[in-house]
Amino acid sequence: MKVGFPITLSLGFDGVREIIRDFPDYYWIADYKLADIPEVVQYILEGLERVGFDASIIHLFTGHRRYDVGMELIGVVAMSHPEAKFFRGNFEKLLDEAELLGVDGIVVGATRPEMIREARRRLPDVRIFSPGVGAQGAEPGSAIAAGADFEIVGRSILGSKNPRLEAMRVVEAQRGVIHGRS
Amino acid sequence: MKVGFPITLSLGFDGVREIIRDFPDYYWIADYKLADIPEVVQYILEGLERVGFDASIIHLFTGHRRYDVGMELIGVVAMSHPEAKFFRGNFEKLLDEAELLGVDGIVVGATRPEMIREARRRLPDVRIFSPGVGAQGAEPGSAIAAGADFEIVGRSILGSKNPRLEAMRVVEAQRGVIHGRS
Repeated sequence: MKVGFPITLSLGFDGVREIIRDFPDYYWIADYKLADIPEVVQYILEGLERVGFDASIIHLFTGHRRYDVGMELIGVVAMSHPEAKFFRGNFEKLLDEAELLGVDGIVVGATRPEMIREARRRLPDVRIFSPGVGAQGAEPGSAIAAGADFEIVGRSILGSKNPRLEAMRVVEAQRGVIHGRS
Repeated sequence: MKVGFPITLSLGFDGVREIIRDFPDYYWIADYKLADIPEVVQYILEGLERVGFDASIIHLFTGHRRYDVGMELIGVVAMSHPEAKFFRGNFEKLLDEAELLGVDGIVVGATRPEMIREARRRLPDVRIFSPGVGAQGAEPGSAIAAGADFEIVGRSILGSKNPRLEAMRVVEAQRGVIHGRS
């Protein structure tokens, strides 16, 4: 489960802590896309760990050092929105940074299947998370087909008249790809 | 006054809202360095405006559209820590982005006086905020001397044995530069 600013602004970090406590078996990702100086990132990660998160998304382009935390780190390498032009020119360097920092996972937008393929080739052991499925235009299963490990789906389910049906449709498409692959 | 993640993790957004209410005359900057997709940034900015902030710091490299908010926007163009290598190669493009987006201010690290001079030349009417004074190595007054409008000083005052004396020392140095300039 991915928690970001929108929910945190409504519930506060205390509210988020309670929800995480109620569902301890999920993998909780702090999606605040941290992009601060390393001293501050270290401090924030410690705080997010105390809130109960298992992993945190950080931006790689800001430049980092290795952090002293128990939680997993997921670095943003490519974003899915049309305005994200800077990531294209820096993609290879951001993959280098992911490798150098030894992150556990990377984020590559699902609308960029060619980038997912390249990231998978360059970093075979790093988990790839792909947002941008549904509302932003990528078809469910398409990022997994390109080599991602997880697709992140938000608005197309949350905004649906029948969220349960929509979630099942997404899972069905993903299963189709996974079974076709194995 | 600049409020970021560290304080927010301790006090929550409710706590921050109370402090802002107690000091309505200050200019309150939300320093969460937003770096998300435009739909989410728009949503977060609305939330931060409700908390009471006057301005918000956003990262420019993620790519944006124009936002529908009343608060001022301050875009990060260059960061002050030694690991911030990506900003150097993209500096001109980030200044273009600041211009395109019509931000009210930009952030240029105080440890990069040559970048402050270049930003001032390129964007004469945009306010320049320079963090990195004190703990990160830049001398008080040095960023203002290079063309910045405001220096952001945190740890060298907060971590001082005599914060009041340290703050006065900083202001004294800045006044020296400002008077020398006019």
